[in-house]
Amino acid sequence: MTNSGTKPILYSYYRSSCSYRVRIALNLKNISYSQEIVNLLKGENKTETYKKYNPKGEVPALIIDGKTLVQSVPIIEYIDDTHQYKPRLLPEDSYKRYQARMISEIIASGIQPLQNNSVLKRVGEEKKTEWAHDFIKNGLDALEKALEESAGRYCVGDEVSIADCCLVPQIYNARRFNVDLTPYPIMTAIDERLSHIPAFKQAHPNQQPDFPGEGN
Amino acid sequence: MTNSGTKPILYSYYRSSCSYRVRIALNLKNISYSQEIVNLLKGENKTETYKKYNPKGEVPALIIDGKTLVQSVPIIEYIDDTHQYKPRLLPEDSYKRYQARMISEIIASGIQPLQNNSVLKRVGEEKKTEWAHDFIKNGLDALEKALEESAGRYCVGDEVSIADCCLVPQIYNARRFNVDLTPYPIMTAIDERLSHIPAFKQAHPNQQPDFPGEGN
Repeated sequence: MTNSGTKPILYSYYRSSCSYRVRIALNLKNISYSQEIVNLLKGENKTETYKKYNPKGEVPALIIDGKTLVQSVPIIEYIDDTHQYKPRLLPEDSYKRYQARMISEIIASGIQPLQNNSVLKRVGEEKKTEWAHDFIKNGLDALEKALEESAGRYCVGDEVSIADCCLVPQIYNARRFNVDLTPYPIMTAIDERLSHIPAFKQAHPNQQPDFPGEGN
Repeated sequence: MTNSGTKPILYSYYRSSCSYRVRIALNLKNISYSQEIVNLLKGENKTETYKKYNPKGEVPALIIDGKTLVQSVPIIEYIDDTHQYKPRLLPEDSYKRYQARMISEIIASGIQPLQNNSVLKRVGEEKKTEWAHDFIKNGLDALEKALEESAGRYCVGDEVSIADCCLVPQIYNARRFNVDLTPYPIMTAIDERLSHIPAFKQAHPNQQPDFPGEGN
């Protein structure tokens, strides 16, 4: 439930990992929302109409409390700031809160920007798979190291946090690019545990209204 | 002053914009620290010794309160979390806090990762200037739009915040790549105002012990 009483609207694309992060966070906080689909393949994110919501022409954008928010990690911070009931997406202990943010940032600034659609397009058809593969692998190496210190059942100890909202979509992406995940036993075990939690299940790309079906 | 009484150590490189962000934040909070130089051009960040501090082989790393922290934005959040005196780097109002994080993230995940050294090396000598230029321009366009809503004297209203810690190093970078800044009157005016604040002056690359002198 939101503070304002008006249902939030998430501008989203099923396979966008940044949209996926915010879907998980909204579900974890039990905030009911509706989705407006922005088809990235059709360039709907680059229209003037959509750019009113997100000038950068990216998904997601979230309309909540009468405001339009962009950038997935700050959106999740805002959701937790303004809905201070459990689960807290930012842990209460300051060092654990740092760990949750650090893990999120390894993904949000260290991996995802280098393998998103617009960058890969520019890298070119011929080189893009190797490029994405290498940057994901490099990032996951650092991530597994960080998890050695921070992880319990989930990314930071035994409570679900913003870091888990970022991890699951990144692993989904790594699988799309056929990255070998066997060197990452900690993160794959966490991903497996998270996959059974309804908030994560319901946020999965395959569960979204714009999912075109397997093989598409 | 830190909580622990031991002086923090910042592993830093004068021209790294992520190091620059953290130097500004430490100065704003009046936290005395010492610097250990990590020369990126000599590959000192990729040594096994340094990777004990930051497994990703990136600067900065900050040793504080007996812990080693990485990722500049989470480091700044931690500094403000554990030193809750003014200036607050995260504004107290939840929407302004969101704005400060959103602006930081446009820079930290939307621009900087696409123009850092290791990425440009991979892009190749021939294409790297145009690549950096285009991604910086695209990011600054979005940033100026965001500032239209959020800015006062500084990025978010009239108080200095984490967003300003990220803005100044990004503009420094844009100038290095000769990006035309005339389409961005709001951000350049903020940058000019910030340039007079001692915390920002002292954090400037040219003021660092490893600055090799103009033209180098």
